[in-house]
Amino acid sequence: MTGAIYLEDLQVGQMFVGGSHAISAEQIKEYATAFDPQPFHMDEVAASESFFGGLAASGWLVASVTMRLLVTGVLPIGGGIIGAGADVSWPRPTRPGDVLHVTADVLSITPSQSKPDRGIATLKIETVNQRAEVVQRLIAKLVIFRRPVPPSSTHEGDRS
Amino acid sequence: MTGAIYLEDLQVGQMFVGGSHAISAEQIKEYATAFDPQPFHMDEVAASESFFGGLAASGWLVASVTMRLLVTGVLPIGGGIIGAGADVSWPRPTRPGDVLHVTADVLSITPSQSKPDRGIATLKIETVNQRAEVVQRLIAKLVIFRRPVPPSSTHEGDRS
Repeated sequence: MTGAIYLEDLQVGQMFVGGSHAISAEQIKEYATAFDPQPFHMDEVAASESFFGGLAASGWLVASVTMRLLVTGVLPIGGGIIGAGADVSWPRPTRPGDVLHVTADVLSITPSQSKPDRGIATLKIETVNQRAEVVQRLIAKLVIFRRPVPPSSTHEGDRS
Repeated sequence: MTGAIYLEDLQVGQMFVGGSHAISAEQIKEYATAFDPQPFHMDEVAASESFFGGLAASGWLVASVTMRLLVTGVLPIGGGIIGAGADVSWPRPTRPGDVLHVTADVLSITPSQSKPDRGIATLKIETVNQRAEVVQRLIAKLVIFRRPVPPSSTHEGDRS
């Protein structure tokens, strides 16, 4: 599929798959230093004695990397990926060297009652590592716009 | 309250408040460049013509900043802040210049049936701007440990 996807292009059951991002120990520590400075995200020795039993990525880094994979190719939504909200869980840790990719399933599509140019789609977005293990599960509500009518067609009277 | 908080210190209705972080246009763009490269998070002009009507922070940056405020003081949980999952929503955009703080309310506490050293607490964590508007609402499930028994007290018999 080429080009941007709009509300009328989406179907329940439609699936998007792609992306590839290798998480490094450096990225785990860099993100943690900025946003989640806890020993199990910063230091291998401290992490080995923690709940995680070894260096693990912040769940919010996994969410951030997932967003990058969606935005840079997996989910080419016209008007952009605009989240209203999401239910996120992290069934297992993400480790240095893990290579992540993303699958996104369209669960439901609800046209807006009040705003005819848009709707809400609910997607199940799973972030999966190189062993096909789910490391993050997102049930996300996205604002999706209808395909804009080109301005040139306005004077033809087909917008009334 | 000083020192770390453990499962036995938590009570339903308990509230934690604090933190202060000013979001800058630079931070919004820097995070977006790394993780959410969409025009409304990267460029003022493009953003002014978008859904957001002006530069807005990625929701995942708001989540990341919220985590930093929790970890660096608002929620001093012994063993760290370990999220099992969360329901996140962004009722309104976060803009350059917004100053964020955080409130966290303990909604429920459930000791683990299988692992006596821990439990799950559900917290409502709101990220609020300088106009007291909620910009992010998180209902988060955290793994919380009981206070560890110091090894030296075992032979004293005063902690049995």
